[in-house]
Amino acid sequence: MSRFLSEKFADLEPYTPGEQPREGRYIKLNTNENPFPPHPSVTEAAEAESRKLQLYSDPECKALRAALAAETGLREEELMMTNGSDEALYFAFLAFCDRHTPAIFADVTYGFYPVYARITGTPYREIPLGEDFRLEPKDYYQAAATIFIANPNAPTGLALRPEEIAGILEQNPYTVAVIDEAYVDFGAESCLELIREYDNLLVVQTFSKSRSLAGGRLGFAAGNEELIRDLNAIRYSVNPYNVNRMTSAAGIACLKQEEYTRKNCRIIQENRAWTAARLKELGFEMTESRTNFLFARHPAVSGETLYKELKKRKILIRHLSGKRIADYNRITIGTREEMEKLIQTLEKIPGIG
Amino acid sequence: MSRFLSEKFADLEPYTPGEQPREGRYIKLNTNENPFPPHPSVTEAAEAESRKLQLYSDPECKALRAALAAETGLREEELMMTNGSDEALYFAFLAFCDRHTPAIFADVTYGFYPVYARITGTPYREIPLGEDFRLEPKDYYQAAATIFIANPNAPTGLALRPEEIAGILEQNPYTVAVIDEAYVDFGAESCLELIREYDNLLVVQTFSKSRSLAGGRLGFAAGNEELIRDLNAIRYSVNPYNVNRMTSAAGIACLKQEEYTRKNCRIIQENRAWTAARLKELGFEMTESRTNFLFARHPAVSGETLYKELKKRKILIRHLSGKRIADYNRITIGTREEMEKLIQTLEKIPGIG
Repeated sequence: MSRFLSEKFADLEPYTPGEQPREGRYIKLNTNENPFPPHPSVTEAAEAESRKLQLYSDPECKALRAALAAETGLREEELMMTNGSDEALYFAFLAFCDRHTPAIFADVTYGFYPVYARITGTPYREIPLGEDFRLEPKDYYQAAATIFIANPNAPTGLALRPEEIAGILEQNPYTVAVIDEAYVDFGAESCLELIREYDNLLVVQTFSKSRSLAGGRLGFAAGNEELIRDLNAIRYSVNPYNVNRMTSAAGIACLKQEEYTRKNCRIIQENRAWTAARLKELGFEMTESRTNFLFARHPAVSGETLYKELKKRKILIRHLSGKRIADYNRITIGTREEMEKLIQTLEKIPGIG
Repeated sequence: MSRFLSEKFADLEPYTPGEQPREGRYIKLNTNENPFPPHPSVTEAAEAESRKLQLYSDPECKALRAALAAETGLREEELMMTNGSDEALYFAFLAFCDRHTPAIFADVTYGFYPVYARITGTPYREIPLGEDFRLEPKDYYQAAATIFIANPNAPTGLALRPEEIAGILEQNPYTVAVIDEAYVDFGAESCLELIREYDNLLVVQTFSKSRSLAGGRLGFAAGNEELIRDLNAIRYSVNPYNVNRMTSAAGIACLKQEEYTRKNCRIIQENRAWTAARLKELGFEMTESRTNFLFARHPAVSGETLYKELKKRKILIRHLSGKRIADYNRITIGTREEMEKLIQTLEKIPGIG
């Protein structure tokens, strides 16, 4: 760090994104990307906008919010678009946490939460998941803190039911609970419908996973109109033109192709079931994933070894360090061909095959 | 605001972007957009990327930084790409200001600086410009503060010479000076070459104005490698994938068309000279603009009246309130046809024609 950096950031530990190899032919099962490209109409929409880039984007994202409102059944005032859902999470930490309002989240969850806590100067507590990585809703009752729950959780893949989230919301009337639904479209139930009932619920979703727009950077926050107004006050104080014209148009086009999205999600879930069955045959242990990845360990091969052996063979999976999960790897579900290749490759690794 | 918003933001006054009318046929001279669309190769590059949006963008923006390094003569480690230059300014406020290191900037300058100061909890002082809106470099000597200077300045259009900036840098060895060069390509001199000499200089530029990419959202910070490392620590703690694939590709394509950019800038400067001469004939007073806008007032018609009269006639200019500048308007330089239409319209307004 330079001698100019504010001392409050002396201990900053930035988030480490998954590897994005620029060369070499890897099968990429490490960043939970969708194996299917966006629908051709998304490309058409983005291209049309790219001819008008001399003009600013609409800071209100009016047309995109209208399309999303129609899709979700929410009102436009209950939605705010962001440059990826990470930005929505960051704004939520800024808006609803501070020195007096700590954050709480699971000890095994999205690795960005503690980073956001540190950069926003928020004290935080990590609540241990159970032995089986299950989240016990009661641990979040009367939390006296802003709650962050990835549901389904990453990297564990496990999901709570909306009733369980509702219980947490009821037991925390004075603080906000942020439910991060990045993976919800792969077999879990969304809490979007609870927004009308609970003014302390903020749901965050992304177009990166189920909608194949990871490289477009589009996410949103949904919640009570007042929460969204707060978040917009933050957004207009940080980066009002946060969503560019092409991505905005791509998002609208995407929302018109919900059948394509649902079909891809269905195929990914089928591939997940197929892969999980094969991995079990090879002796792997797994959680019950509701996401587009599997969280797996092998009793005979350490997590790190497995990661390295696969990387040598041009398959990337995500190895996350951390004491409870060092034996596990997070494996993105790709196409059937990619998953077949994964299984064939695993069979050749000493200790597994 | 909701009962959940952190009390530190109780007095937040977000930035107000210029009007972006969604309907009606306005001549838009209010947000300093380039009247020329991006080069066709920009569209081609963005379209090609839009077919791969299922994959994350490169958080390092390696290819784009390489292209920009070649263009600027800087090293890749001296550059960081951002989602518009506003994001670079925000990161600079976060990194180099805090309760103990205040910010200083002119009393008449980019309206986002005080907003950034407030959202980052930074105390700030506004240094009055001279009577003629000129910035006196000596006012920034031994500032004991992080310095923000828009150069050329907006909305005044006036520019300092690099030697004057160098003087400020020399007189502030213990703090960073951020030189915001959003408008530099329209006739001012850049400070990029001073980066090797001064480790406390951060230059911020944008692709929004001279490069016709306002709607793509692309900016960058350039500075000593250590400053850039600090800013990256912030960026990786806020939004590592801040630049999307399409914009990144558009930026690279743009940099290959510098001749197109330069030609457009030349035309805009010619239109500026033409418009300034006509406005003078109509009795307007103006500063000497080095930007793609004019900062003008008329002795017989108030700034607000002028803005309203033009809006009625479907021409949008930017009226900025503020005690010293309430009589002025900021008028973006568009195509020759647009400027002719502006002059013809002004001639019909009572008190001017």
